[in-house]
Amino acid sequence: MIVDFSIAPIGRGESLSAHIADAYRIIEASGLSHEFHAMGTNLEGEWEEVMSVVNACRLRLLETCGRVSISLRIDDRKGPHGRLDRKVASARGKAGL
Amino acid sequence: MIVDFSIAPIGRGESLSAHIADAYRIIEASGLSHEFHAMGTNLEGEWEEVMSVVNACRLRLLETCGRVSISLRIDDRKGPHGRLDRKVASARGKAGL
Amino acid sequence: MIVDFSIAPIGRGESLSAHIADAYRIIEASGLSHEFHAMGTNLEGEWEEVMSVVNACRLRLLETCGRVSISLRIDDRKGPHGRLDRKVASARGKAGL
Amino acid sequence: MIVDFSIAPIGRGESLSAHIADAYRIIEASGLSHEFHAMGTNLEGEWEEVMSVVNACRLRLLETCGRVSISLRIDDRKGPHGRLDRKVASARGKAGL
Repeated sequence: MIVDFSIAPIGRGESLSAHIADAYRIIEASGLSHEFHAMGTNLEGEWEEVMSVVNACRLRLLETCGRVSISLRIDDRKGPHGRLDRKVASARGKAGL
Repeated sequence: MIVDFSIAPIGRGESLSAHIADAYRIIEASGLSHEFHAMGTNLEGEWEEVMSVVNACRLRLLETCGRVSISLRIDDRKGPHGRLDRKVASARGKAGL
Repeated sequence: MIVDFSIAPIGRGESLSAHIADAYRIIEASGLSHEFHAMGTNLEGEWEEVMSVVNACRLRLLETCGRVSISLRIDDRKGPHGRLDRKVASARGKAGL
Repeated sequence: MIVDFSIAPIGRGESLSAHIADAYRIIEASGLSHEFHAMGTNLEGEWEEVMSVVNACRLRLLETCGRVSISLRIDDRKGPHGRLDRKVASARGKAGL
């Protein structure tokens, strides 16, 4: 499955990038296919793999923050892996872009 | 934590309520505090408790659907439980409604 | 269409209910069908009606906050109105609850 | 503001890329800064600019689909534009990646 994952502390000031950096390190170290984008990170893997990474990021932020907000959007489709790389290319091709 | 959870099959027709009903039964049987609303269900519990219910709904829908879409919005705040019942009342009170 | 709408300031402390109360007053005054729930508010109306209310809440929070986060999930289905009241009842009925 | 925008028809089969391609063409023609990613598209612009593009995509899909699902996550921060390009770089830098 592919998961669009976004995490942020609440009540820790307007600049969030230091907290996001903590999540980036955990995601990079996870070995899962991923794509950082301006509003979140797309992760590809099995349910347990992806949720383990999300939970590790959550626990890391809760070490220093009293309240954390997380958004997950999951696209779970039976069949081959490697969709993370192909989804944009497929729609781009059909759009003639 | 409180989680706003929404699940839907993709490509199974426009009416989704039979699939949502499957999720409702699993949620009711879970024993977790919950609130059904028109666009999803709010669940309150620990990470493992809530994710176990979400995963059970996911696996149930994947028995009959080739593709499933899930949205989760998580509000994780240290402190006492029972926030599911109090959040709307607190904002209503401050709004003078 | 039905829209699940959530709004929060970023960097204004952990307690958000005073800001949410501002949004509640705007929503109540709008006259649109709505349902407050623990993680957001469901609004029913035409695109322009709903987006006008969301934008008014956004502008209200930006008067006092430098950064605002908004989440919208839209279910737009051709046909009769009044779905806000019927969606939960329909799934409950099929679930035998 | 930056908006993460995702749109999909409901009940039109499991493959969505032809519908997404329609949205891509509208987004490309809009002239707004944007970033296609595997789970949505990030758009940067003023409220009216971004919502006009989202609404055009919505109306296009409703020409052929009876039900459309849309997700928007908005990060609205006072100050300079051009954040779409800088957000990932900023967190990457702090993560030492």
